[in-house]
Amino acid sequence: MKIAQIVSLNESVPPDHKNGLEFVVSWVTEELVKRGHDVTLFAPSDSKTSAKLISLLPVSLSSDQNKLYKLGQPQADMWNSTLVASQANKFDVIHSHSRSIVYHMPYIKIPVVQTLHHPASSHHPFLHDDHTGLFLKFITEQYRKINYVSVSKSQLDEYIDTRSSYFKRYTNIYNGIPINDFEFGNDPENYLLFIGYINENKGADIAVEVAKQLNMKLYLVGSNLDQEEFFESKIKPFLNDKIKYLGPVDFKEKVKLYKNAYATLAPIRWQEPFGLTLVESQACGTPVIAFNKGAAPEIIQHGKTGFIVNNKDEMVKAVKKIPSIARMNCREWVLRNFSVETMVDGYEKLYRSLVEKEK
Amino acid sequence: MKIAQIVSLNESVPPDHKNGLEFVVSWVTEELVKRGHDVTLFAPSDSKTSAKLISLLPVSLSSDQNKLYKLGQPQADMWNSTLVASQANKFDVIHSHSRSIVYHMPYIKIPVVQTLHHPASSHHPFLHDDHTGLFLKFITEQYRKINYVSVSKSQLDEYIDTRSSYFKRYTNIYNGIPINDFEFGNDPENYLLFIGYINENKGADIAVEVAKQLNMKLYLVGSNLDQEEFFESKIKPFLNDKIKYLGPVDFKEKVKLYKNAYATLAPIRWQEPFGLTLVESQACGTPVIAFNKGAAPEIIQHGKTGFIVNNKDEMVKAVKKIPSIARMNCREWVLRNFSVETMVDGYEKLYRSLVEKEK
Repeated sequence: MKIAQIVSLNESVPPDHKNGLEFVVSWVTEELVKRGHDVTLFAPSDSKTSAKLISLLPVSLSSDQNKLYKLGQPQADMWNSTLVASQANKFDVIHSHSRSIVYHMPYIKIPVVQTLHHPASSHHPFLHDDHTGLFLKFITEQYRKINYVSVSKSQLDEYIDTRSSYFKRYTNIYNGIPINDFEFGNDPENYLLFIGYINENKGADIAVEVAKQLNMKLYLVGSNLDQEEFFESKIKPFLNDKIKYLGPVDFKEKVKLYKNAYATLAPIRWQEPFGLTLVESQACGTPVIAFNKGAAPEIIQHGKTGFIVNNKDEMVKAVKKIPSIARMNCREWVLRNFSVETMVDGYEKLYRSLVEKEK
Repeated sequence: MKIAQIVSLNESVPPDHKNGLEFVVSWVTEELVKRGHDVTLFAPSDSKTSAKLISLLPVSLSSDQNKLYKLGQPQADMWNSTLVASQANKFDVIHSHSRSIVYHMPYIKIPVVQTLHHPASSHHPFLHDDHTGLFLKFITEQYRKINYVSVSKSQLDEYIDTRSSYFKRYTNIYNGIPINDFEFGNDPENYLLFIGYINENKGADIAVEVAKQLNMKLYLVGSNLDQEEFFESKIKPFLNDKIKYLGPVDFKEKVKLYKNAYATLAPIRWQEPFGLTLVESQACGTPVIAFNKGAAPEIIQHGKTGFIVNNKDEMVKAVKKIPSIARMNCREWVLRNFSVETMVDGYEKLYRSLVEKEK
């Protein structure tokens, strides 16, 4: 099939020092190419892909040193959608990872798939179920043309509950990772791992408290960008020989940290729609202890690949039960459910069904 | 002709208590209807028009008490453009007063006119003349399809100087006002008038200093929204029996204030692209003394309908020369150059030439 993949121009695909949706876009794209599809990726020039690359910008917005483009971030995203939409007839299907494609739905005559990478609460404050009249008719009509993909059932439920006015066509396809890139380790060291943005939502402060209470080593990995106050008050005062902040790390270093960790902590305070790090950790054999929020209970097999807990004290207790988890179980769980192959099977099936329907 | 008029959904057309582009849109629309055109206005439901009204929103964003729509202001504008573009084939020409129409230029097959109501410096930070590659090719191609209308030659020059990459087709058409709505007065009282946003750009503080120096009455009229600091430090301390802040006023009250004023002061610090109040004041017979910025020298006939000055001291001197101005000159100058009829002659001619070219 001729497939367009479109993503906002914030990050290169894949990104350098960041987790996130651009990795998923990269993995989907590469696997589709491997399977013989004719894929065009609309992403910044600093992306690396075996697909055809069409770049509106010479550099991703996040790495735009002179801020020439950064200033116009919303416009960049709109223009990228305009660009794809204006050549829609070259493709069998458009797969968007950006929201602005919806403004072009009146003209796009081929199927459009959009993966929801964010929670419903962050989506379109403009769209409310109590809109009436022309608004309801015209705008929701455009939304309803889009074939949405949720990345977890908990995310799907949230969209159905709160965004019913435009949420009409949907499929759940879990994110997947290229498991061979995540080396398995069966001989962990004795440190705990926290990986992700160092902020309130991700619960970095709770991870610190858990490590303190257990008197264990903890490595905090990830960006603390725009989180100065949280970092200064909740994290920095507790850093010492045992509790270390490593900042953002590159892919290779990340895998090494996963592989050698005793357990990964995810004391999330928000309805995280997926949780790529949870899957990556398990792929390396490292069990995950997560709070019972968002997709965590779908991604972790409680008692077999980690533990789902409700608070800090339960997390402390769960760390003590880590020896009961067979690390190979973690990897196999990911292999069966969260591989790139499984994910792309899902997307391929969806694309095909939509293209067939059009005929 | 079948003409679509489109404006952002910020204000009703015309607005209640505000000067600005929505008045111009209203005047253009009503005059076109009067001349027998089939006009459709895409504006909020609280607009008043004899054209067909298509309203995406039941209320203008500025009067949206529950802030349901306000939250999504940029989306509102985008959706309005999407709506017009999706039915472009119903019209002979689209006349946009909003910028977001450009994202739909790949699909619109009829002529698009866009009036520039703002200075070039406020336009599209995303667009820079040093863009290269695909950006330059694709995006500037879309901009260049638009037939821009500047509202003054000084504005036009600024666009040509700084936005040459997308500024290809343009015409200058001065804004016009419905002169009969502005009553002529030949028997002014002894107050000076400042009318417009009470801010630094408009130079409200300079008007206050001029009045103080002359020991004359001054009425300050207009919104001080988002200008708390300026108002508290530069205006409020000087308010007294003679220098009064009247806040925003409605249309009727505004005309009364113009008509009875001794002179209107416009000590503008910015490159104002037009200056509706300057024209309105003259229509009522009241001469205007303005700083030599933006379109002021085009709108005021120096020595005949007011004075163009360079600083506060010159403004003080000019007030003393006001008796040399015949108030009827002011009105006739507006009648000849800045009437709705003259403006709409310009637009009608432009529309026709574009529609003819398409055939």
